Amino acid sequence: MTTAADILDRCDELARHSSLPNGLIERVYLSPEHAAVNALAAEWMTAAGLATWQDAAGNQCGRLEGATPGLPALLLGSHLDTVPAAGRYDGILGVLLAIAVAERLAQSGRPLPFALEVAAFGDEEGTRFGTTLLGSRALAGTWQNEWWGRLDANGVSLDAAYRAFGLDPALIGEAARTPVELIGYLEAHIEQGAVLDDAGLALGVVSSIAGARRFQVVIEGAARHSGTPWALRRDALAGASEVILAIERIAREADLIGTVGHLALFPDAVNVIPGRVEFSLDLRGEFDPQRDRAWALIEQTAEQICERRGLTLTSVQTHGAPAAHCSPHLRAAVATGIRLAGGESSPTTLFSMAGHDAMAIAALTDIGMLFVRCLGGVSHHPDESVTEADVAVALDAFEAAVLALADQYDADEMDSEYDARAALR
Amino acid sequence: MTTAADILDRCDELARHSSLPNGLIERVYLSPEHAAVNALAAEWMTAAGLATWQDAAGNQCGRLEGATPGLPALLLGSHLDTVPAAGRYDGILGVLLAIAVAERLAQSGRPLPFALEVAAFGDEEGTRFGTTLLGSRALAGTWQNEWWGRLDANGVSLDAAYRAFGLDPALIGEAARTPVELIGYLEAHIEQGAVLDDAGLALGVVSSIAGARRFQVVIEGAARHSGTPWALRRDALAGASEVILAIERIAREADLIGTVGHLALFPDAVNVIPGRVEFSLDLRGEFDPQRDRAWALIEQTAEQICERRGLTLTSVQTHGAPAAHCSPHLRAAVATGIRLAGGESSPTTLFSMAGHDAMAIAALTDIGMLFVRCLGGVSHHPDESVTEADVAVALDAFEAAVLALADQYDADEMDSEYDARAALR
Repeated sequence: MTTAADILDRCDELARHSSLPNGLIERVYLSPEHAAVNALAAEWMTAAGLATWQDAAGNQCGRLEGATPGLPALLLGSHLDTVPAAGRYDGILGVLLAIAVAERLAQSGRPLPFALEVAAFGDEEGTRFGTTLLGSRALAGTWQNEWWGRLDANGVSLDAAYRAFGLDPALIGEAARTPVELIGYLEAHIEQGAVLDDAGLALGVVSSIAGARRFQVVIEGAARHSGTPWALRRDALAGASEVILAIERIAREADLIGTVGHLALFPDAVNVIPGRVEFSLDLRGEFDPQRDRAWALIEQTAEQICERRGLTLTSVQTHGAPAAHCSPHLRAAVATGIRLAGGESSPTTLFSMAGHDAMAIAALTDIGMLFVRCLGGVSHHPDESVTEADVAVALDAFEAAVLALADQYDADEMDSEYDARAALR
Repeated sequence: MTTAADILDRCDELARHSSLPNGLIERVYLSPEHAAVNALAAEWMTAAGLATWQDAAGNQCGRLEGATPGLPALLLGSHLDTVPAAGRYDGILGVLLAIAVAERLAQSGRPLPFALEVAAFGDEEGTRFGTTLLGSRALAGTWQNEWWGRLDANGVSLDAAYRAFGLDPALIGEAARTPVELIGYLEAHIEQGAVLDDAGLALGVVSSIAGARRFQVVIEGAARHSGTPWALRRDALAGASEVILAIERIAREADLIGTVGHLALFPDAVNVIPGRVEFSLDLRGEFDPQRDRAWALIEQTAEQICERRGLTLTSVQTHGAPAAHCSPHLRAAVATGIRLAGGESSPTTLFSMAGHDAMAIAALTDIGMLFVRCLGGVSHHPDESVTEADVAVALDAFEAAVLALADQYDADEMDSEYDARAALR
């Protein structure tokens, strides 16, 4: 049976599949590394007793039938892709916990009132094509055909990358699941914040996931020789710097998080004034209207800055998601799982500033999430760290949450039968 | 005989040798494009009547003997390399004017009291290895062996690039000229500022060239998930933005020019807080002590900003040059040339904020420069523009400046002979 130590070994094994040298991790959608970790996940799913397949979006899937074949499924999942210079647990730990839980339940012999499926999503981070959650959105049936033309940094379109990976873009619809096939979705994930670590807790229940809006902002000035006098300068980077500080101030005041994580300047030479700067803005918060008001203020302020400096500003939204709320009965199941695994009688509930596959799946079915402590809240960094003890209780809690749902589901079924019988009377 | 129109045609022909697509120009040191334009320059030098060779640093050179073979030479030159997305005249026009002047003097049959040499330098901009004036510094004998290990953006060392270009790094000393071989250096160049254009003048005499200091600044914070709360963020880009605005303010107040032209962030992903930002600073002004005081203030301010934000700052100087002053007798020759070409009786004198090969050559011999109007002062940009009429008077003035020097040199020689005879009495 897969132990917490085995799960950490598997995290290490997956970390070796990287496009970066020197032990740094980067694994993007539809890359050779993606294919390699799908093969490993499939092997571990098979060993756990699941039937496996790779879906039409490159997600690696597995299924364990319930008491009778063909029942609607409880889906467990997370993602195997990473940001550049990533840690080895973000997403990955959730997939490996899901496989280990499925293995425990397969070996327990207890017939479940639902099937159990595991999804290892191929794209959550959006590193390659700038659009996140491509894997989980394909499964949720919210794929948008306008994405096919998106280009990666090497000018390869998403469409071409699908073909190179051996997938057929025309069949993307086959990855989409329907609500009747599922009873809900549970995801285990490292916290990527320091709430649990600060409180000395291994696990927490997620209440909701921040809605992020992402923008691509372009500031245009004039590329000129660096000796050009002040009166003739229209420096796009000086303007961008002022805008970045305004974003920081406005987001802080509105109790939101704003991040400029990507920035490129042109022509990017030591002796040329930057004529053009492009940057990303990731804006997230618990309340959507507050976030939208802050963006309006940022845009207005940035326009004033650019006008004063003789620059032009354009911005497009590249991603937008409302805050996603976890379903009360799945939150209750996760809380029960934590309690049964030896946690507090009333487990801590957290809000997630980070986005997760669960946000995409919320369009399809009910969602619930279990957070696992990560050291110092450090994530998206090689220093990302979890303890074996925390992984062990997470495994127990995740299994117990599934069993709590099974109990609930059995009871609900009886209620439904009772209601049905009552209706016949 | 080469006309102003021919010179503009040659600028267009050189512009076709570029590493960028879509008509954009970039031509860096030791590239295939460098080899191609050297071959063209050699062809035009040969047609002008010069003996040609490529020196040990990849500079394309030509020589026209004076009244007797082996006389010290007046060197005319500029560079053929470019910044990314460059114009087609910066440096290039000066090389082509020098070749055309040599042709006129070769065909005039007038024996000159010095040889005439033309140098088409392979690196002035420093685009590829971040260190400028590599071509002219090799010729000036101020090459530094520590440069060999410098890497370009693809990780190719300067040493390896030399070998790939067919040059032997061990022979770099052969490119160095000695003061006794030369009587001075004249360079024609577009102004890269708008002083001449604003004044409605085609030509100007350069008084001195700003000394630039360049720094590589690195700000280190912590790469974290973009959902990380404010209290835990150490955002290197937010810090860099504040530093860039401080540079702008301090440089303006000190009457200097400061440019952050290159900036890179790591890991540069939309959903990761930048953990590290590297940027260049190019700081230039007419007076070296003023510039050095401003840098000290910038460094102190940047350290305060970084300390407040939990960031660390390191900076290294990558280039430093004192202001270079043009020699009075070469300034006088350039002024005479402008006057004889139909310009004002007392030509305008300008200060150059842009660096030039002449700065490097000032370590070897006397320097003088002729500035040619460029439209709106626009340079380092595809819109860089000169008129055929301005090129025509520049050609006349540059030739007349050389002849004025020849007259001066003949008179000096007579004085020297007189002094020598006097000493014997």
